Amino acid sequence: MPLGQRAGDKSESRYCGIETEFNDDMPQVLHQNISGGFDFVVAPLIDPSYRPSSAKNDGNGTSVPPFAASDLILSPSQWSSHVVGKISSWIDLDSENAELRRDSEDALKTEIAWASHLSLQACILPPPRATGCSNYARTVNQLLQNVSNMQLWIRLPLEQHEAVEDDAIDTNFKTSVSSGGRMFDSWEWWNTFRLLCEHHNQLCVALDILSSLPSINSIGRWFGEPVRAAIIHTNAFLTNARGYPCLSKGHQYLIKSFFNHTIQIILSGNLVHDISQERILPAGDDNHFEGLPIRHALRPYLDYVAYLYQSMDPLPEQERFEIGYRDFLQSPLQPLMDNLEAQTYETFEKDTVKYTQYQRAVCKALLDRIPDEKATTSTTVLMVVGAGRGPLVRASLQAAEETGRKLKVYAVEKNPNAVVTLHSLVKLEGWENIVTIISSDMRCWNAPEKADILVSELLGSFDDNELSPECLDGAQRFLKPDGISIPSSYTSYLQPITTTKLYNDVKAHKDLAHFETAYVVKLHRVARLAPPLEVFTFTHPNCSASINNERYEKLRFEIPADTGSTLVHGFAGYFDSVLYKDVHLGILPSKATPNMFSWFPIFFPLRKPIYVPAGSPIEVHMWRCCAATKVWYEWCVSSPLVSPVHNTNGRSYWVGL
Amino acid sequence: MPLGQRAGDKSESRYCGIETEFNDDMPQVLHQNISGGFDFVVAPLIDPSYRPSSAKNDGNGTSVPPFAASDLILSPSQWSSHVVGKISSWIDLDSENAELRRDSEDALKTEIAWASHLSLQACILPPPRATGCSNYARTVNQLLQNVSNMQLWIRLPLEQHEAVEDDAIDTNFKTSVSSGGRMFDSWEWWNTFRLLCEHHNQLCVALDILSSLPSINSIGRWFGEPVRAAIIHTNAFLTNARGYPCLSKGHQYLIKSFFNHTIQIILSGNLVHDISQERILPAGDDNHFEGLPIRHALRPYLDYVAYLYQSMDPLPEQERFEIGYRDFLQSPLQPLMDNLEAQTYETFEKDTVKYTQYQRAVCKALLDRIPDEKATTSTTVLMVVGAGRGPLVRASLQAAEETGRKLKVYAVEKNPNAVVTLHSLVKLEGWENIVTIISSDMRCWNAPEKADILVSELLGSFDDNELSPECLDGAQRFLKPDGISIPSSYTSYLQPITTTKLYNDVKAHKDLAHFETAYVVKLHRVARLAPPLEVFTFTHPNCSASINNERYEKLRFEIPADTGSTLVHGFAGYFDSVLYKDVHLGILPSKATPNMFSWFPIFFPLRKPIYVPAGSPIEVHMWRCCAATKVWYEWCVSSPLVSPVHNTNGRSYWVGL
Repeated sequence: MPLGQRAGDKSESRYCGIETEFNDDMPQVLHQNISGGFDFVVAPLIDPSYRPSSAKNDGNGTSVPPFAASDLILSPSQWSSHVVGKISSWIDLDSENAELRRDSEDALKTEIAWASHLSLQACILPPPRATGCSNYARTVNQLLQNVSNMQLWIRLPLEQHEAVEDDAIDTNFKTSVSSGGRMFDSWEWWNTFRLLCEHHNQLCVALDILSSLPSINSIGRWFGEPVRAAIIHTNAFLTNARGYPCLSKGHQYLIKSFFNHTIQIILSGNLVHDISQERILPAGDDNHFEGLPIRHALRPYLDYVAYLYQSMDPLPEQERFEIGYRDFLQSPLQPLMDNLEAQTYETFEKDTVKYTQYQRAVCKALLDRIPDEKATTSTTVLMVVGAGRGPLVRASLQAAEETGRKLKVYAVEKNPNAVVTLHSLVKLEGWENIVTIISSDMRCWNAPEKADILVSELLGSFDDNELSPECLDGAQRFLKPDGISIPSSYTSYLQPITTTKLYNDVKAHKDLAHFETAYVVKLHRVARLAPPLEVFTFTHPNCSASINNERYEKLRFEIPADTGSTLVHGFAGYFDSVLYKDVHLGILPSKATPNMFSWFPIFFPLRKPIYVPAGSPIEVHMWRCCAATKVWYEWCVSSPLVSPVHNTNGRSYWVGL
Repeated sequence: MPLGQRAGDKSESRYCGIETEFNDDMPQVLHQNISGGFDFVVAPLIDPSYRPSSAKNDGNGTSVPPFAASDLILSPSQWSSHVVGKISSWIDLDSENAELRRDSEDALKTEIAWASHLSLQACILPPPRATGCSNYARTVNQLLQNVSNMQLWIRLPLEQHEAVEDDAIDTNFKTSVSSGGRMFDSWEWWNTFRLLCEHHNQLCVALDILSSLPSINSIGRWFGEPVRAAIIHTNAFLTNARGYPCLSKGHQYLIKSFFNHTIQIILSGNLVHDISQERILPAGDDNHFEGLPIRHALRPYLDYVAYLYQSMDPLPEQERFEIGYRDFLQSPLQPLMDNLEAQTYETFEKDTVKYTQYQRAVCKALLDRIPDEKATTSTTVLMVVGAGRGPLVRASLQAAEETGRKLKVYAVEKNPNAVVTLHSLVKLEGWENIVTIISSDMRCWNAPEKADILVSELLGSFDDNELSPECLDGAQRFLKPDGISIPSSYTSYLQPITTTKLYNDVKAHKDLAHFETAYVVKLHRVARLAPPLEVFTFTHPNCSASINNERYEKLRFEIPADTGSTLVHGFAGYFDSVLYKDVHLGILPSKATPNMFSWFPIFFPLRKPIYVPAGSPIEVHMWRCCAATKVWYEWCVSSPLVSPVHNTNGRSYWVGL
């Protein structure tokens, strides 16, 4: 039974599971917990006392491992919808003891094969040991090649725990910066494990949530990782005034973040709150109290989790609209080389917030340019370059009306298909005397007069990536010396991110080109590791003697010290543009124009993710290169590790002029 | 004129060059230096005062860069055989000054294009600056895509030099462990540069040799790098008792190592030794003293270098034989799945050292087994398993003769083609009464009696990699309980290496499989970074209750502290085997059997080379995995960085059973 309804949320985080002990009467386990309000169980598949080596000594292939009865005790759909397999926790593949290692390997392979036979959707693997995880990872990696669709969730505590003073501890698990003492960070275990398994996309994480939580920055890393479940222990709950379980503010925030990231909650542990008001079925007890309304022992915890779920705000309209685009890689537009389609114009024109900003900017420019006393006599020449189907023409005319200024508008558009619509709009609105439509590329049009104001919307997600600079450099020939360009400047920004999802999606193409391409993407399962830094700025009109739109910037990102080590899969790019004076427009998270949907961020991938130890800055180089027929970016990381230069000579990704 | 003749050496290190100043009379520069005894010049191609930005202001495309006259002043073959271009040293692509950066980029591109036009074989690039080299590397990387066959040699000082106290210094160039103060290591520059350029195989190194040298371990790293030239400065020379230039012992050793690694010497600088006895043409002076026997100013230095060359020992016979195999990747044999060819037997049988060792081992075993008093009455049953064309049969019979013991020999061989030769050998030698030939696989032969001694030569370069353990486990059925196996045990060894050449050869295949394959290779241009460590050991006969030939070993290599940082491209593998008691056989460098040529080392590549900071240990994991029809290795690095597990499930490389 789902936790509740939340408008717009169709994700699996509505379903809540429970961790159970081994019990070979699986139908009973399932009945008890499903009727108790849970949606699935996390159950061991095999008797925890079973060891392959003892079984082997029994005879010659006659012994059977003591699995939970046969596969027939549940229907195939029950197995796959309601059971997550829990792999034996005694397994230790990195033990010094070679026999235990071999037993562990046998058991792991047997249990995974059984789970696979049952078509379970997932199995939870026990956490690696502090002594290392290479042999464990090697074995899991072998298994991952053959488990068809089943996911393997490696179980990890969400904490940085104090190191034992033990020389056997793997040097791999590096200490993170912390106030005092050596701390071990379970993220390091995960990182080692998944690097050994090469980011296999069926290798996921289940986090154990305990009573104490690491810092918010440290937790934040997990939102870029494939976390599928959060296991909350009953002793992580506090007690409210009425004696009922509840969670700390930090835990509440965390759980809600999990809900927002399609991470399922699993309850674990025993009843630790003394709730005497109601009759409760002891956890794990399989006695039958037929006919009586018996509540599940962990029901108060489940109720609290459901309450948290139900108390969340409905998804905002815009988020609901964009939900299908989450973490979906799109190629950036090539509006210069290709003509946009009607549908694309349709979408962008609906972004009223954007045009309101343009209207405000044109208003301010008109007021600055024409004093009140000249309002009725002076006519301002305004050119919309890249007019499309006319939204900026409309915004400009509305600004003229609002300010009482007289306007003469040229609407320059290179796409002949859009020009058709533009003509009909002008006719429909009766703008024939004010608006002149020019069907031409702004870079080669010979204007009959010079403009006071040049209005354009040529920006891409990374500001100059749709070649606004080159277009406006071409258009500024017909701007008066004191004329105004709206936008008057724009700046791109970059930020390192962890994003296993996008990395795997790029990798799935199995070629170099996709790793050297920038993508437009609605970032969702992403960890933003450091504040964005400015990259390139362009100002219009450009008054330099010789215009050069090549750029080179070296960026140095500082990751907050309490984050711990991280893995960088690439960089998120944004822009912010000054339309006119204080009127700006952009998607830089800290000052993004609200409710604007025309731009998703851009994503620059790295061919190989870069491990950044706690406290190390990341040094990134970004170039904007120009040639006769194209513009492209090259990028690289030079610290803490050196990457190759990406996209040399624009071999993989470029924007045509 | 080459430096001299050295038996067996046909390499380019016989040719010596000289660095010259800019001079637009190139024919004269060439004449003077070639007649002075040098083979080529390293000459600037352009006036060092030229700056593209000043030239541009001159007019509209009418100005020409002041190149050394035209391409016609030398013949194409003179340009390509005798001139290495020297790129302007003022170039600074990582300057804070954007104009200088742009000028540098223009000049670099122009000069490389000109050198390319002249079909020069190589250009020497100025060293990177301490402030960083990312933009320099990015530009060179762009150029490398289009220079056809020309090599670019980046010039680097062979020294670890004291850091300037400058905050602008790139954090990239990490300090290496050193006795006192911060030291910068030019290898770090090279490493950053080539990683950014992704190991491009036309990007090479020219080392500047100064008067002081770094430690031997630090220098050793360069022998795994593509060093093409060593530029020795005249002030690096000492003065001998007669006032002539000479080099320190350390420098002599270094220069000879260069000769052995096909690295050319280039002399640079002015005459700094006061040699009054002879008339000498001042360096760089282009006056003509026609008819007079004028010696080149740097002739005494050249003579000394030639003396060093000529004083080297001739290449040993074995080395001359193996010279064609240097750094050449070969796939290991699959002697179980495939039958060896006659030519292969022919080669291996010539390795007399190996059979002498076997004969010694059999002698000792016979003496231990049969006391003198039973010599004439007892017959020892000896089985050669994998007898091939008979060399071990012969060695065993010679041992019997030497010790006066009586022998009955079974020669078991699965290759029917070799059995033919074996029969004719037995007939020819008259061994019919002693030797029984068995045409069968040792793993399934039903022996008519049990053996006292089992002799085999089934080892590969990495000991068990031709499945000796599996074969001998099968054969030990017919060994008496107290019988002897020769070899009685064997151990494999591994060692991390730098080897740009092999890495690039593997990479050239552009697939995963080649990066997950082990190769047999005569290692030459290789830096051995740490002493080899033991990996797997097998003992025969194997008395365990249940035989398991799977293995897992975790190795931790410590690189000497004075080496500095390194890049690990993979691992060299060796073996050492105990034939019997103190008679061993192997290729482990520290105790290799001399003059034995049957085995080259094995090479396990890494898919991506791993940067190891100075002082960091390297942690490597190696598995030997067995399935019904094949055996394979998996391997990974877990520290200082985590690699993927290589060759999962033997997907790329395996040995068939």
